[in-house]
Amino acid sequence: MTDAALPTLDEAGVLREAVRSQGPLVQNITNYVAMTLSANVLLAAGASPAMVHAEEEVTDFVAIASALVVNIGTLSPSWVSAMVMAAEAAGKAGKPWVLDPVGCGATPYRTETARRLAALKPTIIRGNASEIIALAGASGAAPKGVDSATSADAAVGPARLLSRETGAVVAITGEVDFVVDATRIAAIEGGDELMPVSTGVGCALSGLTAAYAAISPDPFAAAVAALAVYAAAGSIAARGAGGPGDIPARLCNALYRLDAEGLRSNATIRLA
Amino acid sequence: MTDAALPTLDEAGVLREAVRSQGPLVQNITNYVAMTLSANVLLAAGASPAMVHAEEEVTDFVAIASALVVNIGTLSPSWVSAMVMAAEAAGKAGKPWVLDPVGCGATPYRTETARRLAALKPTIIRGNASEIIALAGASGAAPKGVDSATSADAAVGPARLLSRETGAVVAITGEVDFVVDATRIAAIEGGDELMPVSTGVGCALSGLTAAYAAISPDPFAAAVAALAVYAAAGSIAARGAGGPGDIPARLCNALYRLDAEGLRSNATIRLA
Amino acid sequence: MTDAALPTLDEAGVLREAVRSQGPLVQNITNYVAMTLSANVLLAAGASPAMVHAEEEVTDFVAIASALVVNIGTLSPSWVSAMVMAAEAAGKAGKPWVLDPVGCGATPYRTETARRLAALKPTIIRGNASEIIALAGASGAAPKGVDSATSADAAVGPARLLSRETGAVVAITGEVDFVVDATRIAAIEGGDELMPVSTGVGCALSGLTAAYAAISPDPFAAAVAALAVYAAAGSIAARGAGGPGDIPARLCNALYRLDAEGLRSNATIRLA
Repeated sequence: MTDAALPTLDEAGVLREAVRSQGPLVQNITNYVAMTLSANVLLAAGASPAMVHAEEEVTDFVAIASALVVNIGTLSPSWVSAMVMAAEAAGKAGKPWVLDPVGCGATPYRTETARRLAALKPTIIRGNASEIIALAGASGAAPKGVDSATSADAAVGPARLLSRETGAVVAITGEVDFVVDATRIAAIEGGDELMPVSTGVGCALSGLTAAYAAISPDPFAAAVAALAVYAAAGSIAARGAGGPGDIPARLCNALYRLDAEGLRSNATIRLA
Repeated sequence: MTDAALPTLDEAGVLREAVRSQGPLVQNITNYVAMTLSANVLLAAGASPAMVHAEEEVTDFVAIASALVVNIGTLSPSWVSAMVMAAEAAGKAGKPWVLDPVGCGATPYRTETARRLAALKPTIIRGNASEIIALAGASGAAPKGVDSATSADAAVGPARLLSRETGAVVAITGEVDFVVDATRIAAIEGGDELMPVSTGVGCALSGLTAAYAAISPDPFAAAVAALAVYAAAGSIAARGAGGPGDIPARLCNALYRLDAEGLRSNATIRLA
Repeated sequence: MTDAALPTLDEAGVLREAVRSQGPLVQNITNYVAMTLSANVLLAAGASPAMVHAEEEVTDFVAIASALVVNIGTLSPSWVSAMVMAAEAAGKAGKPWVLDPVGCGATPYRTETARRLAALKPTIIRGNASEIIALAGASGAAPKGVDSATSADAAVGPARLLSRETGAVVAITGEVDFVVDATRIAAIEGGDELMPVSTGVGCALSGLTAAYAAISPDPFAAAVAALAVYAAAGSIAARGAGGPGDIPARLCNALYRLDAEGLRSNATIRLA
């Protein structure tokens, strides 16, 4: 495969503009810790977020949403049930949905819930290396709670298995990010080591990925574009930050202002 | 009616000082996304926020609170039940309470819950145009999830109907804000287009409105003052902001520091 | 007792480095308002936070965590049940856990829940003066919702009673902080009056205290060190802040960057 098979940064920029002009409505079933940042990242990127997770309304909301993200960061039984309902509704309606298997591998409850949701054929799965390895059922480093205990490249093989099994595009984020489907592997570089020192930054990326999936008919291109845009914005955000505390606000500012030149100078997409 | 029938910015400033000196205890039953900002806005304005929403304690807390805000942004059955209990307790105790019908019109569950609460006679209802139109049962633009799909002035007529039906003062926020009761309409200007690009900013205003309602015997004057103070602080916050990410922190700073001159220079109140 | 019986700032600095190098996994069962800041404070300090509160997984997670914090800021019955399960599991496993009795004294539900948890022998209890007085069952100023209505020194006597009854080290935070056990009382100074104008700052300190308790075999030294580090970081954070809105980000930056000199210049530990 040649680089030509991968979306370019300019194509990512076109999707970024489409998100801004179309403002897709993204339904978030996500954890308490990352909800606010997830909403702010989506707003800054030009999408319209809504946090809707009650069994009483998830299905009604999927009907009006353009995409859905299901993040298992903070679980409870009624939420799991609503997650399943929403994922099934999205599947039936042919709407793209993203699974973020936070902490998969840390407890049986998380692993089980993540696998149950993965079986519902998410369009895209995004997680850190430990989560993807655990979800794929591969042997590998157990996570440290919700943080990864291994680097992203160790998860590329398990991600391919997972993609073949579920049909999903699998995005692994870390120092270098990877997007994997049955035949392609893209590596995205950018970002900054301060990003994982700020909570919910990965979770918010899952929401952003859903916004891109709402716009693009190609989930692989959507995931690559979302990760490249985020890597560029993260890199811009970290420059001049006084520490990790400044990341959330500066990341939203950077997403809001990101232009083609900023994207080209702060991220790369290459074959892996 | 003449402008003389409206509270002035100087009168709003007097209420602002009264909130600071009396520090009213405001009970918040609000959504997960906006809880932190709501608490920070109340603290910055000089009030004392508490997030108390369990059926086991809402009624006990209403007894010690000076005002209550009920925001339906993230619903579940036990929360709805606690909202009803708290609203009824506030009504019985003659304590002011504010209803924020987030996403009313987006799903039947939201619309039903909002109507059920509106029937309990809130002191003030604050929402965006789509929410107020949906709550009034008027025909109008359906919301885009939790975001408004129409401008605030389109909701003035429905707000008047809603005010007559419920007895509540109705505040509609948008590019221009309106406060409506059975006989008066005030328009408040200020703020900035960055404000709706930051999540929870409207929800936090509902909390602030409850703090003002705790201090003023006149809910119309309280709502106008809260909206004017917020418009001025929002305008100050946006000036020099690097993007939407800076709004929450800068808004709290501006509320904390706002003085009479800042209020006069950054907001207007007029007849509409 | 002489000052020699107290941990020094240099010893606090050694623990701070140990938290950074060992990165303890801290399980948080905490309130919705403070979750994000709690996670960010732990990350900035070098620990690895996880928010895990479902009855279905709390016990499994305690088994892999290095320490636990139980904060009752936003209660509901299933959370209370999970809190009890987690505290019992931590006790059995001999893992340190911190109780933060938010709003104890404000409603019977809170007071009861806090007492039920205190009976499970937390390693450290951290609260404001009103909460500690209410938890000790002493007569004293009732809280104003979740804010203290009295100064920290008024709670030193009740804290000693509480320490004797539960075996816990008791930390009272306010303008001056106190750490109390059966025989010692340390006073920690630093911080800034802007800190309580930002929500969740006290709750996040409870999480940080758990991280220090995970590292040190002496809970008294752990509590003193955590409070001194936080006081220094808070003092640095407030310097140059534009208002309370800047505190969360600047506090995380200061924790991330704090060195021995910054600790020595911005906090004091003395006998009380």
